Amino acid sequence: MGKKIVVALGGNAIVTKDGTAESQMKSIKKTMETLVKFVENGDQVVITHGNGPQVGNLLLQQANGSTEKNPAMPLDTAVAMTQGSIGYWMQKGLDEVLHEKGLNKNAITLVTQVEVDRNDTAFENPTKPIGPFYSETEVQQRQNAHPEFVYKEDAGRGYRRVVPSPKPIQIVEAQAVEQMLTNGLIPIAAGGGGVPVVKNADGSYQGVEAVIDKDFSAAKLAENINADELIILTAVDYVFVNYNQPNQKALTNVSIDELQKYIDDDQFAAGSMLPKVRAVINFVKQTGNKAVITSLNNVDKLVAGGTGTVITK
Amino acid sequence: MGKKIVVALGGNAIVTKDGTAESQMKSIKKTMETLVKFVENGDQVVITHGNGPQVGNLLLQQANGSTEKNPAMPLDTAVAMTQGSIGYWMQKGLDEVLHEKGLNKNAITLVTQVEVDRNDTAFENPTKPIGPFYSETEVQQRQNAHPEFVYKEDAGRGYRRVVPSPKPIQIVEAQAVEQMLTNGLIPIAAGGGGVPVVKNADGSYQGVEAVIDKDFSAAKLAENINADELIILTAVDYVFVNYNQPNQKALTNVSIDELQKYIDDDQFAAGSMLPKVRAVINFVKQTGNKAVITSLNNVDKLVAGGTGTVITK
Repeated sequence: MGKKIVVALGGNAIVTKDGTAESQMKSIKKTMETLVKFVENGDQVVITHGNGPQVGNLLLQQANGSTEKNPAMPLDTAVAMTQGSIGYWMQKGLDEVLHEKGLNKNAITLVTQVEVDRNDTAFENPTKPIGPFYSETEVQQRQNAHPEFVYKEDAGRGYRRVVPSPKPIQIVEAQAVEQMLTNGLIPIAAGGGGVPVVKNADGSYQGVEAVIDKDFSAAKLAENINADELIILTAVDYVFVNYNQPNQKALTNVSIDELQKYIDDDQFAAGSMLPKVRAVINFVKQTGNKAVITSLNNVDKLVAGGTGTVITK
Repeated sequence: MGKKIVVALGGNAIVTKDGTAESQMKSIKKTMETLVKFVENGDQVVITHGNGPQVGNLLLQQANGSTEKNPAMPLDTAVAMTQGSIGYWMQKGLDEVLHEKGLNKNAITLVTQVEVDRNDTAFENPTKPIGPFYSETEVQQRQNAHPEFVYKEDAGRGYRRVVPSPKPIQIVEAQAVEQMLTNGLIPIAAGGGGVPVVKNADGSYQGVEAVIDKDFSAAKLAENINADELIILTAVDYVFVNYNQPNQKALTNVSIDELQKYIDDDQFAAGSMLPKVRAVINFVKQTGNKAVITSLNNVDKLVAGGTGTVITK
């Protein structure tokens, strides 16, 4: 059956400077020409992806274009909308490449909810900036409508809304993802980190105003479906220590204990490599299986025999 | 295994006057309390739905809020976005009801592409109005940016863009829908009539600026998965002839030949009952299986033993 792998794509796999649908579809097609190598290799592939620029653009449009009769959508719904758009672009792009390669397989996008804990401390301390910049006056007007929204000053550029970024505790649709793999499909799931939901006392779910880090969700999905491997594709070929210093060192094979020491040593940038490293540690710790962090450009070598930073227990 | 049925929901199953996500989720939850009766009855259910008000609102927001750097999305992508949002609301709402009833089943939303023929005559004669009203001056400005867009004067209220409404010839993800049913899932598919795509000479698909009638897509999906029954839920309990006349008559059991005669006799309103009747004729003709047109309120009686307008070969 081949290895069961979860591949997490970063924003660079989708968006260019040009935010048109046409341009994003072109970038995605190129990305899929790379990802298809896993399929040719016989792997069972699940694809997850970020949605930062897309949901940001949607929130901007809704902030400028919404009216009382036609209100902006809350964050959970906005994430679901970008799962629809990016998922469509990806399944179309991948299907096209599969067809060109004569591979009789199909991609399929699932709207994916991801459960978070309503007691996650992230809800007390929202940190993730989203949407447009506002002046102090605009913030006051906006807080009349939504007193629960939190705004923070952003490096002299104005105020932005900040939302919580809680940790995923379960991918609601994980079982469906597994069934699709078994059926030979290539699922595109947990886009944008997933639609954030919390569980009510009666067992039902409720959407929340939050965003979930896509690498954490990818790791949770890989754990929930017991993937053989989690592959995080980013802009660099390796995880580095002493990054951009004269003694910079690429990590090739590293244990989760070593990685943890590097984290304690502040080796990784907060908004960038740190969440990826934390995400793979979670996955490797829970499953004992291996994870890889490398670049999209390195996928050839990865499939051929291995490259990038390989993380094991 | 129970009957395999495709249920098509109209706009009244989703939206109220209040366009907030919260209000639409509430309407959907109520709708799902009705639809769950098919599940309790042991049927294998596929749900399809419209997206008229939702895609209209999205296009309005994008028309008002888009910029050069943050452009509005084309129609195929906009439909995919509403498949994401409405699909999320539906799968969450249905999962909630299933959980309340102690039914160990789950709903799942698939982003669904629907193939149309690029030679469909609808492309020569766009008829479906979408998005905001414009003045004559605004139309001229907009046509500078998109000379291919067609605008029509709408009953003295200004100009609106009109787009083609081609007929579906294949549901691209039909096989995945069948596999989900086999796995015991409840697929939500072909939302908003599906993302319209045409097939290129090389076999790849390409999105087009069009909208597909959701009842035609529901009928095509039912045909593609060889459903035992197509159920179109609308605002009225029956299809009527001589509607709103003293001699109005509810149709209970009717053959497709009789229905065709009523069509030839101009018995059905163009934007309303006519496409539903045409859609069920397509399904019944292709499969020999039966179709029902009735209201959401009538589902109890329908499950209990039958009501509404039953269409057979």
